Amino acid sequence: MRKVAVIGVGMTKFGKLIGQSIEELGVRAAWDAIKDAGINPKDIQIAYCGNVIVARDVIGQAILKDVGINQIPITRVEDACASGSCALREAWLAIMSGLYDIALALGVEKLTEQGPSPLSYKDRSIEAMVGFQPAGWWAMRAQKHMEKYGTTIEQLAKISVKNHANGCLNPRSQYQKKFTVDDVLQSPMVAEPLTLFQATPISDGGAAAILCSEEVAKKYTTKPIYIAASALTSGNFEQQGDLTINDLERRCSKQAYEMAGIGPEDLDFAEVHDCFTIAEIVRCENLGFCKPGEYTKALDEGRWDLGSAFPINPSGGLLSKGHPIGATGVAQICELVWHLRGEAGERQVANAKVALGHCSGGTVAGDNAACAVHILKR
Amino acid sequence: MRKVAVIGVGMTKFGKLIGQSIEELGVRAAWDAIKDAGINPKDIQIAYCGNVIVARDVIGQAILKDVGINQIPITRVEDACASGSCALREAWLAIMSGLYDIALALGVEKLTEQGPSPLSYKDRSIEAMVGFQPAGWWAMRAQKHMEKYGTTIEQLAKISVKNHANGCLNPRSQYQKKFTVDDVLQSPMVAEPLTLFQATPISDGGAAAILCSEEVAKKYTTKPIYIAASALTSGNFEQQGDLTINDLERRCSKQAYEMAGIGPEDLDFAEVHDCFTIAEIVRCENLGFCKPGEYTKALDEGRWDLGSAFPINPSGGLLSKGHPIGATGVAQICELVWHLRGEAGERQVANAKVALGHCSGGTVAGDNAACAVHILKR
Repeated sequence: MRKVAVIGVGMTKFGKLIGQSIEELGVRAAWDAIKDAGINPKDIQIAYCGNVIVARDVIGQAILKDVGINQIPITRVEDACASGSCALREAWLAIMSGLYDIALALGVEKLTEQGPSPLSYKDRSIEAMVGFQPAGWWAMRAQKHMEKYGTTIEQLAKISVKNHANGCLNPRSQYQKKFTVDDVLQSPMVAEPLTLFQATPISDGGAAAILCSEEVAKKYTTKPIYIAASALTSGNFEQQGDLTINDLERRCSKQAYEMAGIGPEDLDFAEVHDCFTIAEIVRCENLGFCKPGEYTKALDEGRWDLGSAFPINPSGGLLSKGHPIGATGVAQICELVWHLRGEAGERQVANAKVALGHCSGGTVAGDNAACAVHILKR
Repeated sequence: MRKVAVIGVGMTKFGKLIGQSIEELGVRAAWDAIKDAGINPKDIQIAYCGNVIVARDVIGQAILKDVGINQIPITRVEDACASGSCALREAWLAIMSGLYDIALALGVEKLTEQGPSPLSYKDRSIEAMVGFQPAGWWAMRAQKHMEKYGTTIEQLAKISVKNHANGCLNPRSQYQKKFTVDDVLQSPMVAEPLTLFQATPISDGGAAAILCSEEVAKKYTTKPIYIAASALTSGNFEQQGDLTINDLERRCSKQAYEMAGIGPEDLDFAEVHDCFTIAEIVRCENLGFCKPGEYTKALDEGRWDLGSAFPINPSGGLLSKGHPIGATGVAQICELVWHLRGEAGERQVANAKVALGHCSGGTVAGDNAACAVHILKR
């Protein structure tokens, strides 16, 4: 199997970037990744663009022409909140095919200045017809977790406190503001028990990564970061018996651990799709970071904090860093690369060697539609 | 290089399929391809869905769950009118990577019952801001071709007559209606010199193809059809000096011919993206089927007709068969496979051994954004 490395990453600040177009955000992220890799834009042989709320067709071409990238295959990919991860994975597959040596994965999204709320499900889905929105779905999971394991609303709030504290150390995070448990619990109720500060915000932003084969990587950098595993899978689309169990994340992470030849105990940190506080709990438990029901005990012990042995979401996660949907999966890769290179500044995870990025997205028949897990190694 | 075969294809009838949902169309196409391949849906390891005018996110998962396909990577791809070709190409790349042996390429689109006209450019593009729509763009190209080569309005109309005559022999074609040159010229003017019957209609439909590695193909069929070349490229996004020259199609077909180790003279027929009559002229000339300016002479001689040595668009093309955007690229592959297997019924190209499918899509800075060329061989 070919070894694929990430040799350059770039990311805009995430936020409500009023007056900045999706094209500008994409150009900035792509250009920063190219500069970081030290390559010529003309060296890029294939590109993928993760984007959900489309501003126009062929958005990848419309962005990349302004970075001097043309005359190559450029394709938009979409898998709801996992779209950025799909862009990365397609770039990885293209290099795995042996037909390409250097690929660009771009993720970009503009959620402000777009008209109707883009985060609600589209009209045609059953979920939309019955008024069943993501916050309601996650609230049900929180209720079940509280009933089953005795998880408290204070513990839920603590996750937001932790991720916002991390975001304060990340200059690209949408928010750099500390919250207390009281702040989080006193913010407006969205869907009981989830309050506003327990939900990911509306965000704009872009992120990009340059991937290449091992041989090519050695020409450009002394710090290649290898993609040890790239796994993507879909739900089983059957009614889940127990909402605290995510079969999707279990299967996907199992594939990734097998591909990388490691277990969750070998990871130094992880970026996890914390679209709501409860999502971080359910996902960490199903990605194998602890046993089911044991996330909150570890949380109380500070085990997921920066400075501990296994920090979760050092970037601030979706809760603080923001969630420009198509960009999120690629932004996780940027974060992984910065830590694995030792370039993450104040929030650096000490001596990080192996890390995991996880995104899940979309809902079909009450089940998450897509799950992507990437494991990177220095 | 791994050899990849198409072992099953399926396609709905194209048309204004009022009351049929995008999910139903996708299910029918996917199911027909699976039956045609004689495989179990659970054998499919990865799937791509080409779709432009999105009805909902994760549309591939929403469709494929009803065909019994789940727990595998499923990704939507978009490259405007070339989206179906991208689905095919990503499925091909996935098998080329050696990580997968059986892949599904689905293309599906619902243009009726969708609200605002989906065929106009989206609001954010420069083209939309200046009111520059596809018909106007192609009308300019027609004017230039007429000025440069003396092409007549009757010759333009003849292309529609030819493709509608072919469509009469294709039970899946949106129209099965013969037109005369007068019928075409007397239909309402859209953008001079292009009349209504010279433009592709609004269509709904789905198409699917099952791809697999050579070794696996031999288990399922005695008639594997091989993908001899798959090329995808983007425009150079510079103002074109001469609108009758399509640098994009020249580069893309050159790559495909080189990959297949053949020239255009080795092809038995082609399916070409005839979104307007003039598009068939410009594209055939740039795909190397004749020298620039010589398409119309050959047209008058009947060289592109069914029954001649090199028929163009035996399916009826976009003009008669219809153009459900995301489905078109995959539908071309269905047509190629049926002819190469000798299963195309009344419109069969005699003893067809090698054929080409071409799609182009999207506009960025006055240049087509994407071009895909596939060459299939029996």
